[in-house]
Amino acid sequence: MPSIDVCFSPELLHLYDLKGKAVVAVDILRATSTMVTAFAHGATDIIPVMKLEECQAYAEKGCLIAAERDGIKAEGFDLGNSPFAYMDGNVKGRTIAITTTNGTRAIHLSMEADEIIVGAFLNLQAVVEHLKELQLDVLVVCAGWKGKFNLEDTLYAGALAERLQDDFAFENDATLASLHLYQTAKNDLVSFLRQSSHVRRLENLEIHKDIEFCLQHDTYDVLPVWKNDKLVDLAVKELKS
Amino acid sequence: MPSIDVCFSPELLHLYDLKGKAVVAVDILRATSTMVTAFAHGATDIIPVMKLEECQAYAEKGCLIAAERDGIKAEGFDLGNSPFAYMDGNVKGRTIAITTTNGTRAIHLSMEADEIIVGAFLNLQAVVEHLKELQLDVLVVCAGWKGKFNLEDTLYAGALAERLQDDFAFENDATLASLHLYQTAKNDLVSFLRQSSHVRRLENLEIHKDIEFCLQHDTYDVLPVWKNDKLVDLAVKELKS
Repeated sequence: MPSIDVCFSPELLHLYDLKGKAVVAVDILRATSTMVTAFAHGATDIIPVMKLEECQAYAEKGCLIAAERDGIKAEGFDLGNSPFAYMDGNVKGRTIAITTTNGTRAIHLSMEADEIIVGAFLNLQAVVEHLKELQLDVLVVCAGWKGKFNLEDTLYAGALAERLQDDFAFENDATLASLHLYQTAKNDLVSFLRQSSHVRRLENLEIHKDIEFCLQHDTYDVLPVWKNDKLVDLAVKELKS
Repeated sequence: MPSIDVCFSPELLHLYDLKGKAVVAVDILRATSTMVTAFAHGATDIIPVMKLEECQAYAEKGCLIAAERDGIKAEGFDLGNSPFAYMDGNVKGRTIAITTTNGTRAIHLSMEADEIIVGAFLNLQAVVEHLKELQLDVLVVCAGWKGKFNLEDTLYAGALAERLQDDFAFENDATLASLHLYQTAKNDLVSFLRQSSHVRRLENLEIHKDIEFCLQHDTYDVLPVWKNDKLVDLAVKELKS
């Protein structure tokens, strides 16, 4: 039986051996939720990059460029980090270069893994089914908040663990903590997260609607995975093949 | 109102500014529980050191020497890491040099703090009262397990947060998670922790009695703090002064 483990911060990733594993990278508020939304609305590829300038350079190659810094859209970019900005047909058939504070970093630090999957509550079941097929050991890599532990990514890890618990082994403390926290919170994730400083910070930016959206489960049948230096939607590829 | 925050691993300590703060270093299984027990049974000072050889050298200075590696007493030392080994009058009036896998490291990495306090369930209320008097911002530094998150230290952080919640501010996610986990677990900490791999590993070493003992609350009125390059029991000093 394969196993599932959770890494609460990119700052702890050096303690884990990623070889032979499937990584699920998660940044619920809002990088990975937004990527999933973009694929659901027809984006063909997403290129996550670390730096604003690097991201900006992709505009010349015909890409849409997206950037968020400290919770708001960076100046001079087509898109920010709100999933609602990706829904009006503007991303259909396009490649998006995106840079975000925490989420991009989690993906880039996970390159040693056999497979990197982008996870969000929005595509929870799609990831669950893919992991059951893969039969690799799983490590959920939480983007965290500037290197520190955050609740929303942990709750996602707990949701994934709950759905995988009959098929994946876990005795490690991070997965147990994630599962218990999710089971405490799941009846009302929005209220539970309202205690958190990061969520309060985001609510001050008037993105309460974003938060409620990003906590919805199983909205999209989308499976972003890392292939040839970018993210593609494996659910679409599988339909086409 | 001062604040309380929780750092889940020494590997994350570089993300926190310790200046002006009180650190509560915790390694429930078993370094800090054992230190608290040693003071309760009359030890005068405890010198935590990183390396076995360094620790061994203290024998020549008339110290008792204590060492644990991978859960068992290291060869050639007077004492291991079981609190029960410190109870038969053998530590009364003695200085103990001790090295342990995770706990010593948490203390040594916290030297920037204004005050370092050794916390365990065994002396929970003594630490609570001291922190209320100090009125400094508090950071609980969990020793973790080889750099990774562990449940027992997190539950201690949650117990401390529960008792301090009327007097200390916390909005950060690590403290919220610790508090929720403690409130889920507190009616039966032993059973809750039995799911954890670290506790299973320790139970294989037949130290179930140690685990039950280390989870007892408020057994000792002991307050180990860092003064002049060693730990002393501030509760005793205060009685004497």
